Amino acid sequence: MNFLEERIVKDGIVKEGNVLKVDSFLNHQMDVELLDKIGEEFHRRFAGKEVTKVLTIEASGIAIAYATARYFGVPMVFAKKAKSINIDGDMYTAEVESFTHKNKNQVIVSKKFLSSEDKVLIVDDFLANGCALQGLISITEAAGASVAGIGIVIEKGFQYGGRSIRNLGYQLESLAIVESMDAATKTIVFREQMA
Amino acid sequence: MNFLEERIVKDGIVKEGNVLKVDSFLNHQMDVELLDKIGEEFHRRFAGKEVTKVLTIEASGIAIAYATARYFGVPMVFAKKAKSINIDGDMYTAEVESFTHKNKNQVIVSKKFLSSEDKVLIVDDFLANGCALQGLISITEAAGASVAGIGIVIEKGFQYGGRSIRNLGYQLESLAIVESMDAATKTIVFREQMA
Repeated sequence: MNFLEERIVKDGIVKEGNVLKVDSFLNHQMDVELLDKIGEEFHRRFAGKEVTKVLTIEASGIAIAYATARYFGVPMVFAKKAKSINIDGDMYTAEVESFTHKNKNQVIVSKKFLSSEDKVLIVDDFLANGCALQGLISITEAAGASVAGIGIVIEKGFQYGGRSIRNLGYQLESLAIVESMDAATKTIVFREQMA
Repeated sequence: MNFLEERIVKDGIVKEGNVLKVDSFLNHQMDVELLDKIGEEFHRRFAGKEVTKVLTIEASGIAIAYATARYFGVPMVFAKKAKSINIDGDMYTAEVESFTHKNKNQVIVSKKFLSSEDKVLIVDDFLANGCALQGLISITEAAGASVAGIGIVIEKGFQYGGRSIRNLGYQLESLAIVESMDAATKTIVFREQMA
């Protein structure tokens, strides 16, 4: 097991309905040393790629993107979930359905911050059905930028998001892929991955 | 001028209605080197204080809190803006009005992540009327924890939030305090502060 899988086993909580709670270290309370390690690991996995920007979606993605952008020495951009009066009219938009919140959001990125020159590393904390990720990919492509890669902290391997995105040809790196979870026995099975 | 005031003058955009847009480096696209400096500066300003946790509110506060928590070597916690099915019933709540979005939000922090032992450094990107901050203070006090200090990146000194919070006796450190802005002449006047 890698550092993240070990931490999930130690502090993650499996709930009924295939819910994995990692709110003590990843998406409510955040362990900053772990975040630093996540950034370092994404940098290692995409070392061969040119990256000019790290893109994510609010809220918990922001810490992941910051951690990663520090290692690449590039700016990070986070897509926002609703129209704010502080955002100019000129923006890329995509519609995204949230697995967690069971609702739809418009996500937006100002056109100022993505250009056709950009090589974008997209990162997020969770990948389940892939809706958020598809929104970020579509925004990147609307900008004429290219997707350098996709880094996910925890992928739910039993949902179809990861497979469909890999089928599209993207380099998708998930630090932990949960193959199955059992709330009764509190066990988590991870997919074997090359180190 | 300090590093932040210089950056605001260089890349901030003054709009009608006392809107200061810093979305190219602070709250949409984020300059990670600048964030690192912000964390370092909060660590310097609260060097005499014991801090066990850094608390903020989603979304843009997350990067500020992470940057700061790295320097203190403590976890950070971000308050969430709506009830999520992934959060347990047991949480502290406060009602917060958003100046930017002109709406009210319930903000919540799980009781697991704040205890009466905690010395909490509260940080956020903006301080205007202080509603978000008051929500975070009330959550901290509901937990029986103490407020070690409050760190704000940009304070709108012409609104009443900063004054009312200082009057309550908290150590509030704002890295830049905007005294006035003029959209026509594109000028920003900062309050003089001790270095």
